[in-house]
Amino acid sequence: MTQFDEKSITPAVIARMTECQDPRFRQVMTSLITHLHDFIRDVKLTEEEWINAIMFLTDVGKTCTEKRQEFILLSDTLGVSILVITLNHPPEGDTTDSTVLGPYYWEGAPELPLGADLGIGVKGDPTYYSGRVLDETGKPIAGALLDIWSGDGEGTYDMQMEGDVGMKARGRIRTDDQGNYSFWSIRPENYPVPSDGPVGIMLRKMGRHPMRPGHIHMIVSAPKHHAVTTHLFAAQSKYLDSDAVFGVKDSLVTPFQHHDAGTAPDGSTRSGPYYTVNYDFRLRRA
Amino acid sequence: MTQFDEKSITPAVIARMTECQDPRFRQVMTSLITHLHDFIRDVKLTEEEWINAIMFLTDVGKTCTEKRQEFILLSDTLGVSILVITLNHPPEGDTTDSTVLGPYYWEGAPELPLGADLGIGVKGDPTYYSGRVLDETGKPIAGALLDIWSGDGEGTYDMQMEGDVGMKARGRIRTDDQGNYSFWSIRPENYPVPSDGPVGIMLRKMGRHPMRPGHIHMIVSAPKHHAVTTHLFAAQSKYLDSDAVFGVKDSLVTPFQHHDAGTAPDGSTRSGPYYTVNYDFRLRRA
Repeated sequence: MTQFDEKSITPAVIARMTECQDPRFRQVMTSLITHLHDFIRDVKLTEEEWINAIMFLTDVGKTCTEKRQEFILLSDTLGVSILVITLNHPPEGDTTDSTVLGPYYWEGAPELPLGADLGIGVKGDPTYYSGRVLDETGKPIAGALLDIWSGDGEGTYDMQMEGDVGMKARGRIRTDDQGNYSFWSIRPENYPVPSDGPVGIMLRKMGRHPMRPGHIHMIVSAPKHHAVTTHLFAAQSKYLDSDAVFGVKDSLVTPFQHHDAGTAPDGSTRSGPYYTVNYDFRLRRA
Repeated sequence: MTQFDEKSITPAVIARMTECQDPRFRQVMTSLITHLHDFIRDVKLTEEEWINAIMFLTDVGKTCTEKRQEFILLSDTLGVSILVITLNHPPEGDTTDSTVLGPYYWEGAPELPLGADLGIGVKGDPTYYSGRVLDETGKPIAGALLDIWSGDGEGTYDMQMEGDVGMKARGRIRTDDQGNYSFWSIRPENYPVPSDGPVGIMLRKMGRHPMRPGHIHMIVSAPKHHAVTTHLFAAQSKYLDSDAVFGVKDSLVTPFQHHDAGTAPDGSTRSGPYYTVNYDFRLRRA
């Protein structure tokens, strides 16, 4: 058959994969082609809309640099990233929920001693983070690793700061024999996802704001357990109900307790106000 | 609601468009988000597949240049382009079928006199194209314009040739008072769509070849009529049943008649073999 109408084109494209050697790739592409064609038929996409879509995707590609991944941002803002994460890490018992990795992870943050201050030279309210890493039965895990990163107290990540400032508000902390962790950093603020590119144009056209509620990232891992990529969200944040990337999980929203100047839980003396967060992570056995 | 599961994420993303001021954009995005999420759920896309898709789309973007549009090629090879064309230009009576524009259209080809040779300095077998442009009732249209382009007899377009060769195998021809057109060019050959980029990798993984059957492009237009973007396909072409971009319409497949050296239909003397094509275009009234 040489000619296709608006219905027969779909099985025709799929039928071209009879020589495909990878059954999973064939399955994924069959579903992709089916849904893509269904979408176009459903809305009866015009030729002008089609070329606009081509130009949009081209702009998204051109906006990607070593420090910026606009396609991940597109995936995040369309709820695709959190959907993939939720499918691959369904909630299990009391174990810690996963959420989006986001575009600001930087491999190789320095391993720091328990109680270290990740917020040195970083704007923002000092915050003492502490708690335990537990297994699924509630037993503490010694030597678990927290790989931690956040923006500063104005929501700006080191990668976004003017000049080459290196790593800021990043570090790796290991739990002690009793599974305890603790570190100082800053209280994370609400911030916008990058909105000066094509995804920003899309968000405005959708009538959406680009804000994320304040959060600190961590990947928590331990031998013989599944690592979890997650956030802690500040319970006071304004955008918990409308996170631009749909990343909020109720179990990850945690109070940031305000304290006046005085002696902090680690015995240090604070000359100004500070916050404390206490949170236990639970890892699933591998 | 702050938290979404693998089902509720879809209405949540759609609900973010309540402030959208453009009802059509909202309709298109609602359908896009629904189908995109359905695809991901259907195949239970893994995180590795997701990042591979991100990197693929990024590569497609990086491959786009002023002379190459890899997203259009992706759309073409997934049958999306011909689907959009077929939806927007459904077949109507005897009027000429539309097919893909392709990536090689170059605006502003020179207007040449009837009978001109577009194939000067172009490799390939000389071919005399003639016929009429008619309205939907079969009445000839005087002053209709054919904007014509093709690759050379090896399937290479001017844009792909080494160096800055300018326009080759391109021209615009206007019908005479009786609606007749005629011009010389070359017989178009089968050729591969660009397969040295990410779309080429995809085609190979799908088990597909990148070939298109030999064809010559034209946009045929006339005042008070709908322009038609179309091809004529050489009936002898090997890939009519497996065009990499699904562009073949039975009504556009036409014989290229072989002739030995001698007097051509326009009275000129040919010292070597040549071909003739006769085809009438029919335009729909606007």
